[in-house]
Amino acid sequence: MNWYLAPAKAIDLSMIDQAKNYQKTLTKPPGSLGQLEDIAALFSAWQNTIKPDVNKVDIVIMAGDHGVAAENVSAFPQVVTAEMVRNFARGGAAISVLAKHLQARLTVVNLGTINPLEPLDGVIDKRIASGTENICIAEAMTAEQLEQALAVGKEVAQRAHADGAKLFIGGEMGIANTTPAACVIARLLAKYPVQVVGPGSGLGAAEVVHKTQVVERALAKHTVTDPVDVLRALGGFEIAGLTGAFIACAQLGLPILLDGYIVTAAALAAVAINPSVKDWLFASHCSAEPAHEMMLESLGKEALIDLHMRLGEGSGAAIAVPLIQAACRLQSEMASFEEAGITTG
Amino acid sequence: MNWYLAPAKAIDLSMIDQAKNYQKTLTKPPGSLGQLEDIAALFSAWQNTIKPDVNKVDIVIMAGDHGVAAENVSAFPQVVTAEMVRNFARGGAAISVLAKHLQARLTVVNLGTINPLEPLDGVIDKRIASGTENICIAEAMTAEQLEQALAVGKEVAQRAHADGAKLFIGGEMGIANTTPAACVIARLLAKYPVQVVGPGSGLGAAEVVHKTQVVERALAKHTVTDPVDVLRALGGFEIAGLTGAFIACAQLGLPILLDGYIVTAAALAAVAINPSVKDWLFASHCSAEPAHEMMLESLGKEALIDLHMRLGEGSGAAIAVPLIQAACRLQSEMASFEEAGITTG
Repeated sequence: MNWYLAPAKAIDLSMIDQAKNYQKTLTKPPGSLGQLEDIAALFSAWQNTIKPDVNKVDIVIMAGDHGVAAENVSAFPQVVTAEMVRNFARGGAAISVLAKHLQARLTVVNLGTINPLEPLDGVIDKRIASGTENICIAEAMTAEQLEQALAVGKEVAQRAHADGAKLFIGGEMGIANTTPAACVIARLLAKYPVQVVGPGSGLGAAEVVHKTQVVERALAKHTVTDPVDVLRALGGFEIAGLTGAFIACAQLGLPILLDGYIVTAAALAAVAINPSVKDWLFASHCSAEPAHEMMLESLGKEALIDLHMRLGEGSGAAIAVPLIQAACRLQSEMASFEEAGITTG
Repeated sequence: MNWYLAPAKAIDLSMIDQAKNYQKTLTKPPGSLGQLEDIAALFSAWQNTIKPDVNKVDIVIMAGDHGVAAENVSAFPQVVTAEMVRNFARGGAAISVLAKHLQARLTVVNLGTINPLEPLDGVIDKRIASGTENICIAEAMTAEQLEQALAVGKEVAQRAHADGAKLFIGGEMGIANTTPAACVIARLLAKYPVQVVGPGSGLGAAEVVHKTQVVERALAKHTVTDPVDVLRALGGFEIAGLTGAFIACAQLGLPILLDGYIVTAAALAAVAINPSVKDWLFASHCSAEPAHEMMLESLGKEALIDLHMRLGEGSGAAIAVPLIQAACRLQSEMASFEEAGITTG
């Protein structure tokens, strides 16, 4: 059996009720913290404790290039993938700024930029190839390359878990990667391309029509339906890396905070391959990319915030972290009515 | 002229365009940070700088009791107001936990608990009276008491501004205070009681009907329409204190982050008294108390988050602070395309 088919860590759901009962003893009107109470109770179950904490967050950005960029499906040239990896390393990108203030470790994994990169601080070189193949013409990657990408994901999940992380954020960087993501989503959710294609990093209306046609061609070329085959034929190295990371996180019992469109496509693949992964996913934000909400619905998740973000890099997830931390801190640190000597009626 | 009629500090709105233009140079697809870009641009205008920061936050909770508690309009006994003040001081309340992790100063101002309180760390004694009068029978307070409450608000706003705060959060504690707040809202927005009364800290359906009747009686008793008179006849000490604080913050140019139902009622009164205050208000969350959204609409504000919170204490505002801080940090700290050496197409 492949490692990625092993079940996710079991969760003691009775902890949710225990947490909810404990919340009733805290100095606030019952239920008055709204969704924060549900979040804290869920982390209680995940961490098997009445006083959960999510202080330590691990952020891993998977980077890779895409052969389909040759079809002119992105607002940015392909060289930007590698340039942005350097920007992450130097602290200049959005996720770099957010990670710094969260005191979260940020690691970039290069799974396949077009050209090799010089050694960079915080960047792990796991380059599988010089980008994927153009999915309009060939399968994105070989079976061996897919196994490699999934295994890299497993490795970073194990590292995060071993280092005591309480929450895993996967981010991505890959010029043109909303196109393979759209293909994966369309096939896994049985949707028409027009339902899942959006402007990505900034296409105009005519360019979105062209991108939709590219997605149609790729889907027509590859008729596979098994989720592992879908990921191999239509995905990307960084998407598969994230899929592997999410499966391994769920197996290790490390909760996953989803970001936007690409990351959720990777999670969709993870759940299609191994349904038990779903229990360890948490939705952060709703992306401005139209099909993101559809994916969250299919996963049975509701986004915490909706700020019309569409940046990628794990940035939407990072923005939501303080809300989750606050939820857990409130449950863990508030006084009870008894401790505070408060009259309860 | 009364101090609270003096105009708010003027804002150079051209800074919003300057900030938006600057954002286009940063290493991300234009517009991809969504609402965070609007927030940062607004703080640029408020702070008159392209690199705004909201690291220092001042939280002031106004506490007071209400004569109308005698009409059985709350799920909690009146003694809880003073007990919760002690809980704030000891660090056990929700806002205490949130303020600690935000490294924000938390001050409680006692404007009128039923009984005097012993000296407590972080609690300022500005007790005007042993609670307000029962608004079903008499005016909540005298004109002199209202001036006192407004002046206390001005004082705490001046203190926050002098200490370099970049954002002011007003919170409140006062058993039964959703009832006077509902009266103020109904009168200022010309709504029927049934449109503005909700369950507060946890009333059942029949109790909400009773509370609505109490609000009807109070509104029938006091036919005043001038906002200062409305605040005096139908408000509360802590509500008036917040109104004074918000007006003074706006005059000083200190942005105000609104919390939920009570706090927004105080802001509504502030804007009714002095319309220029509106330019310095920012909405944090949408409360589960039904009429909150109606108030935000009337103020032309949109809440950042909606987590079904209904706790008060400024807790909803505190929860939203990291989103605002992140917005400003991204604008202030991200690298430009030029700095990062990124190809722009």
